[in-house]
Amino acid sequence: MALKRRLGEFEIIERFFAPLARGEGGALALVDDAAILPPMGRGRHMVVTTDAIVAGVHFLADDPAEVVALKALAVNLSDLAAMGADPRAYLLVAALPKTLPTAWIGRFARGLARGQRRFGIHLIGGDTVATPGPLTLNICAIGSVSRGAELRRSAAIVGDAVYVSGTVGDAALGLRALRGELAGLGARQRAVLVRRYREPDPRIELGRALGRMKRTERVHAAIDVSDGLVADVTHICEASGVGATIEAERLPLSDAVRVALGRDAALLKTIVSGGDDYELAFTAPPLSARSLARLSGRSGVPVTAIGTIVSDRRVRVLSGDGRELEIRNGGYRHF
Amino acid sequence: MALKRRLGEFEIIERFFAPLARGEGGALALVDDAAILPPMGRGRHMVVTTDAIVAGVHFLADDPAEVVALKALAVNLSDLAAMGADPRAYLLVAALPKTLPTAWIGRFARGLARGQRRFGIHLIGGDTVATPGPLTLNICAIGSVSRGAELRRSAAIVGDAVYVSGTVGDAALGLRALRGELAGLGARQRAVLVRRYREPDPRIELGRALGRMKRTERVHAAIDVSDGLVADVTHICEASGVGATIEAERLPLSDAVRVALGRDAALLKTIVSGGDDYELAFTAPPLSARSLARLSGRSGVPVTAIGTIVSDRRVRVLSGDGRELEIRNGGYRHF
Repeated sequence: MALKRRLGEFEIIERFFAPLARGEGGALALVDDAAILPPMGRGRHMVVTTDAIVAGVHFLADDPAEVVALKALAVNLSDLAAMGADPRAYLLVAALPKTLPTAWIGRFARGLARGQRRFGIHLIGGDTVATPGPLTLNICAIGSVSRGAELRRSAAIVGDAVYVSGTVGDAALGLRALRGELAGLGARQRAVLVRRYREPDPRIELGRALGRMKRTERVHAAIDVSDGLVADVTHICEASGVGATIEAERLPLSDAVRVALGRDAALLKTIVSGGDDYELAFTAPPLSARSLARLSGRSGVPVTAIGTIVSDRRVRVLSGDGRELEIRNGGYRHF
Repeated sequence: MALKRRLGEFEIIERFFAPLARGEGGALALVDDAAILPPMGRGRHMVVTTDAIVAGVHFLADDPAEVVALKALAVNLSDLAAMGADPRAYLLVAALPKTLPTAWIGRFARGLARGQRRFGIHLIGGDTVATPGPLTLNICAIGSVSRGAELRRSAAIVGDAVYVSGTVGDAALGLRALRGELAGLGARQRAVLVRRYREPDPRIELGRALGRMKRTERVHAAIDVSDGLVADVTHICEASGVGATIEAERLPLSDAVRVALGRDAALLKTIVSGGDDYELAFTAPPLSARSLARLSGRSGVPVTAIGTIVSDRRVRVLSGDGRELEIRNGGYRHF
């Protein structure tokens, strides 16, 4: 971009962010102090979540701007999906280093626009500040859920089956591939994994469908897999006062992950402890199996039983021969 | 604090932040992926805003943790006040440098607890991330307003009187005092100014009362004074397609600011362009004067007419002899 002078805060908002508010009256074109949203509809509750991503911590400093935008949105929409909620709108706080090129912000805004179209949401507010630190992007996502249809973490029951959607481990291996730590993988498989790391696809439809199952068959506990499969199943177990046994052989794996695992069996630990897949993990009574299979067929998202909720308050991963996999640091921790 | 090891993300949340969620069922004790809020009440709309503060930019790195907490809350609640909204709940994203002492986080949480009691709100969610950059605190505040009672920036009309609540310039001179740039001020006056800089008191009651005035007398446009009086009146004027004339002699000044101004008349520019007072600036038709005086008397918050909305699309500040004050950079800009 041929701009000689740096854009000011208000010019950045006007040029790049205000267009993202068009179509949502409550955003008040981003000129007011706050956004106004009318009631969510009869019997609908508001669901709200917020997650930040920091350059060098949650994304790579040289990740393309559009990819960073989609990731900032997806990590938040994935939290809504884990509650069974429909996304409605979002706010963005962008802490921008002064060295960040204006063109980057433009590409970032284009990524947000793509995400908005994909998820049917609009930007309704935010803040733009300068930081001497790394680029930090914080989104607060607002959705709604019908009273009683919300999914929670804290209601897993001993005897429940543990399920996970899609495939696991792709994002963790994608990150390794980007770092050049996955030698010998074909270009196509590498691209599949990298894409899964860079462009998480929050399971909004699935979460909504899970919340609407018949009461007797309903999911007991749900979470999105962001910290890592074992860490997130542990979150469910801690909130519910139970434990879980996961059978490694039942884990749904993509072809690319299978190939990588065939070359290096030690990657299994990365697969069960790596984060960023943004699949849904959930528990449901055994009698739900058939309904879940139907629901999976309709939504086109695989849903796989990978283990069982047990009373012993530990989360164990068993390999094919029944031995327990030793997993240190079940998932990503920031500190 | 005698902790030998650093606390992890989840321990920080459990020890310091989860207690701040007690009393608000929708926070789900911060163990879920998102918070759930029931509808705001019949005819109530949700109002949502978000503002971040960065160490070294919006607050001083050695400001006490409790003060930083109150400031992070107040800047957001002030935005709700400017919309005439009642605060209800908030989310917090804390980007913490690894070097930040655990004890600091404890004091920060105590400051939030104080703010929660003062404003009748609870923490309902958030995110805690590590950053290699400066401490960055981002709050997303949620409130509600009765349909039709919301205040906006964009409806100022030529002939409106321009009002401001409380006194102006205190915070800007408080910051100067902290930096040692205000020689000759007494200790008590210095303390008053510093307190105004450090502990802004959002005008929630006033905003709510302004939104509830009779339709014929109602405030046309409102904003909170965060960027600076001239900058924020300019925001109103730009959003409304008008201009304003402000008479410096009518500005409501605290005793401390009067003393400082007596010693150095050049401080007037700081007073009209400095930010952080978090008063409300608003415009209303001349016939509202009596109602506003009554409302000011009831709420105990001074409300002072300081100028007029004009058709010429500029914001001018006139000194006592009618000359125009030259103000460069009407207010704080981040870039």
